[in-house]
Amino acid sequence: MAVVKLAKAEFNYVMPVSLVGATVTGKPNFLAVAWFSRVNYSPSHIAVALSKDHYTTRGIVEHGTFSINLPGADLVARADYVGIHSGKSMDKSAVFDVFYGELETAPMIASCAICAECRVVQTVDLPSDKLFIGVEVAAYADERLIADGEPDATRAAPFFLATPPTAYFALAGAFADAWRVGNGYKGGEK
Amino acid sequence: MAVVKLAKAEFNYVMPVSLVGATVTGKPNFLAVAWFSRVNYSPSHIAVALSKDHYTTRGIVEHGTFSINLPGADLVARADYVGIHSGKSMDKSAVFDVFYGELETAPMIASCAICAECRVVQTVDLPSDKLFIGVEVAAYADERLIADGEPDATRAAPFFLATPPTAYFALAGAFADAWRVGNGYKGGEK
Repeated sequence: MAVVKLAKAEFNYVMPVSLVGATVTGKPNFLAVAWFSRVNYSPSHIAVALSKDHYTTRGIVEHGTFSINLPGADLVARADYVGIHSGKSMDKSAVFDVFYGELETAPMIASCAICAECRVVQTVDLPSDKLFIGVEVAAYADERLIADGEPDATRAAPFFLATPPTAYFALAGAFADAWRVGNGYKGGEK
Repeated sequence: MAVVKLAKAEFNYVMPVSLVGATVTGKPNFLAVAWFSRVNYSPSHIAVALSKDHYTTRGIVEHGTFSINLPGADLVARADYVGIHSGKSMDKSAVFDVFYGELETAPMIASCAICAECRVVQTVDLPSDKLFIGVEVAAYADERLIADGEPDATRAAPFFLATPPTAYFALAGAFADAWRVGNGYKGGEK
């Protein structure tokens, strides 16, 4: 394998797709977002990066709340649709069936397998994006996914974005046990 | 589908696995990390969340640099190994073949398909974790993955962590074109 330096300083990886919800000018609005991550173990926090000029960004700044929702493959066209079209030019409030939990300005999507509502605890201003860090106030899941009290996201047909090749990918099966398969590595050799 | 509120406020999703590198007490050290994301478009920034008590955290705080590396499935045992074992109790510097780019304290992994070296521009202190936000100084890839100047991460056999069921998952094929499939959604119905 020959490793070469790239023209662009950009780490390419395959990103899980979420739908981020907010209330903007009084209506629920959703946006497809691949730039998110859990960032704190307890209490659980989620960070979401959005371009400063996104319509959804305004709503999160205004209310200090957002939701994050895990779409299954059955929602791929709608997820892509709310990624392509900005709420600036189109009312997206009717694309999904919405429900609310404890926060009145964090709309969630009833047809998503797993959802969480978050309250912003910190906002980091980056050159082109705002990074919203939210503490999770409550989480919800399709009861059919729950085993031992926790939802299994792999059973929700999650999908992933990769650019290139600008496509959505499905998940294949499990091939190793986490926090166990490493016990088979004996060290020493590289 | 019946959506229920979960006992734990925790958004479960399927996370890409990376290996984060740092120099700790003068040696390269790597840790398996699933809590990371791109967070700024241009220049590209990566955020990585690490428990405050991780050994690797010390090195990033000391030097203000880290690397992020995308392991393929062939490295799953070693990736898991450096996740199970802390550098506090074990010298992990020999697990991978290391190379350096522009930063002298951001070791990268030669057998990973895609790597980037980052300089920390901001650190966010959260209750249990530190969130390191780094600007990407340079990125590297196996030349066999490159098409039109950019590496295609889907060709690197990336893998994903989900808990439950505490396993590593592979990627399946593409099933829809991103930024196009949404054009088929006609709106109106939910």
